[in-house]
Amino acid sequence: MKIAAYAATAADRPLGSHTIDRRETGPEDVAIDILYCGVCHSDLVQARNEFGRTRYPLVPGHEIVGRVVRVGESVSRVKVGEVVGVGCFVDSCRACSYCRDGHEHFCEEGAALTYGGTEMDRTTVTQGGYSRHIVVSEGFVLKVPASLDPAAAAPLLCAGITTYSPLRQWKVKRGDRVGVVGLGGLGHLAVKIAAAMGAEVTMFSTSRAKEADAQRLGARGFAVSTEPETFQKLAGRFDLILDTVSAPHEYAPHVSLLKPYGTLVVVGVTPAPASVLGLSLIMGNKRIAGSAVGGIRETQEMLDFCGEHGIAADVEIVPASRIDEAYDRMLKSDVRYRFVLDAATI
Amino acid sequence: MKIAAYAATAADRPLGSHTIDRRETGPEDVAIDILYCGVCHSDLVQARNEFGRTRYPLVPGHEIVGRVVRVGESVSRVKVGEVVGVGCFVDSCRACSYCRDGHEHFCEEGAALTYGGTEMDRTTVTQGGYSRHIVVSEGFVLKVPASLDPAAAAPLLCAGITTYSPLRQWKVKRGDRVGVVGLGGLGHLAVKIAAAMGAEVTMFSTSRAKEADAQRLGARGFAVSTEPETFQKLAGRFDLILDTVSAPHEYAPHVSLLKPYGTLVVVGVTPAPASVLGLSLIMGNKRIAGSAVGGIRETQEMLDFCGEHGIAADVEIVPASRIDEAYDRMLKSDVRYRFVLDAATI
Repeated sequence: MKIAAYAATAADRPLGSHTIDRRETGPEDVAIDILYCGVCHSDLVQARNEFGRTRYPLVPGHEIVGRVVRVGESVSRVKVGEVVGVGCFVDSCRACSYCRDGHEHFCEEGAALTYGGTEMDRTTVTQGGYSRHIVVSEGFVLKVPASLDPAAAAPLLCAGITTYSPLRQWKVKRGDRVGVVGLGGLGHLAVKIAAAMGAEVTMFSTSRAKEADAQRLGARGFAVSTEPETFQKLAGRFDLILDTVSAPHEYAPHVSLLKPYGTLVVVGVTPAPASVLGLSLIMGNKRIAGSAVGGIRETQEMLDFCGEHGIAADVEIVPASRIDEAYDRMLKSDVRYRFVLDAATI
Repeated sequence: MKIAAYAATAADRPLGSHTIDRRETGPEDVAIDILYCGVCHSDLVQARNEFGRTRYPLVPGHEIVGRVVRVGESVSRVKVGEVVGVGCFVDSCRACSYCRDGHEHFCEEGAALTYGGTEMDRTTVTQGGYSRHIVVSEGFVLKVPASLDPAAAAPLLCAGITTYSPLRQWKVKRGDRVGVVGLGGLGHLAVKIAAAMGAEVTMFSTSRAKEADAQRLGARGFAVSTEPETFQKLAGRFDLILDTVSAPHEYAPHVSLLKPYGTLVVVGVTPAPASVLGLSLIMGNKRIAGSAVGGIRETQEMLDFCGEHGIAADVEIVPASRIDEAYDRMLKSDVRYRFVLDAATI
């Protein structure tokens, strides 16, 4: 099936119109007309080949929301007409211990990434959500609560689960003091979700300019990371700090803000290593933890949670023709707080 | 009460005979004739003023085993004649949330360290176990199982709990793959304890020379940290790695050996920071965690566990007159695996 898409064809060329193939709807498949696709920083990284591993043409996009237009005969959970989502992966081996435990993103055979990878046959190249239509196996299709605006819900499929999952893994509960470092696509959802969990959230930003916005999103406190007194004043106060910054930075200042048994969770992919003094972790049994998206079961749980609490991303909808401009603005943090591509413009 | 002790009087002078004061036995106190005191690396660090904060004279020693010779009228848990232990702290505020939860080592007011600190009055200087006698509040006295040799049990009070606590915190269970980095005072107890918990233990050492010893202690596997193929061969295999090395070293190679959701626990205090690439933690939700000794309840649990499994340290007993020689040999790792001071020689 030939489908209109928007693709990167070289690291230094703007994205443009492109036609891709999608498979016919198999017995377990859900065929989805894409409505919106969130624009993730990793789309830019891969489109512009910053890791040197991109195979062109590349159709990015793994924050997909669309409407079901056809289902295979074995499909029982989703129905034609429903609004559904697809996140960072579209299949996995379904048999290893990680898949069985609902951690498909750590599948021992390697999950099939939504774009820039391959299906589990390891030959069919996957292409993502900057397109009009996608066909995905039912087990990897999420139900988007009807209470959420489809465009604003799209970023939940990556940015949402990336921030929700560590808050759950580390058992954030009512009254916990949670810090969120960096107010961008990830950070603004982290504030909303942590606040909805009942945490007392403090936003750490490099500039006072975002203070009012942080409060509107649900932060009770605001601290400027570039002011050294911040780290004296707030030392030892936090149960968990979620670090969403992808620019190079040190972890030590945030570790100093943790209580005993507190955790700094890193979700922003930084290009350079940070230095860590063992003693700063030993004194207080502190932890630095990484977290990557989440499995299908947890992603559905996150969507249901967001539906219940009316949480979605603050988005700016862009047409496909302006995707490169959106990338450039993302690099300058000139977006509040997530671009979403309108698939009707492809 | 005047008590014979062995004290450091300056960073560059050998330890020597010294007389200290111990308080009379109060209603809640336990008076202990010290039998043995383990020699911990931190004794050396403080005796030789490596942190620049030592107040002299200093009587080191926080791995104390002795016999109860007198108890105050309110004491009910320990009896005259019993063998008991005292670890890294001898009091705490007993009221803050950490104390109430059994984490006295993180007392908000700062626990009273067994030596080199002060009692909770913040004026009476504490002096440690390189002495003939000590008086400690009942709540900070541990019961040493009768099945254990008192000299070999002494190192459990610091080295034992330092390795037992993270294995419990991170819920090591039968069949888990546990790595232990560094075969010294901490490492040899880590191997014994993890093996007794049912873990499949692999010892990481810089030299093959210790392989037979590691196996005798309970390690099923042995790997040489300086051979790069070690890290290829064992990549992604471990649930938990306990890093006991205090020489400067990187964490990244050991992080690469962890499974998803695996943890590198750091207990060796290194002088220099290590570098950590966020992505190496994010891919697999891995963690680097610190751990410092343990609370009173957990220390008693550890001693009971060791009693049940016949676990104690491999020790070399030294007289007080040879303590500086023991320090020098510790610095060369020339001890298998812990020096213990015979208090009768003081």
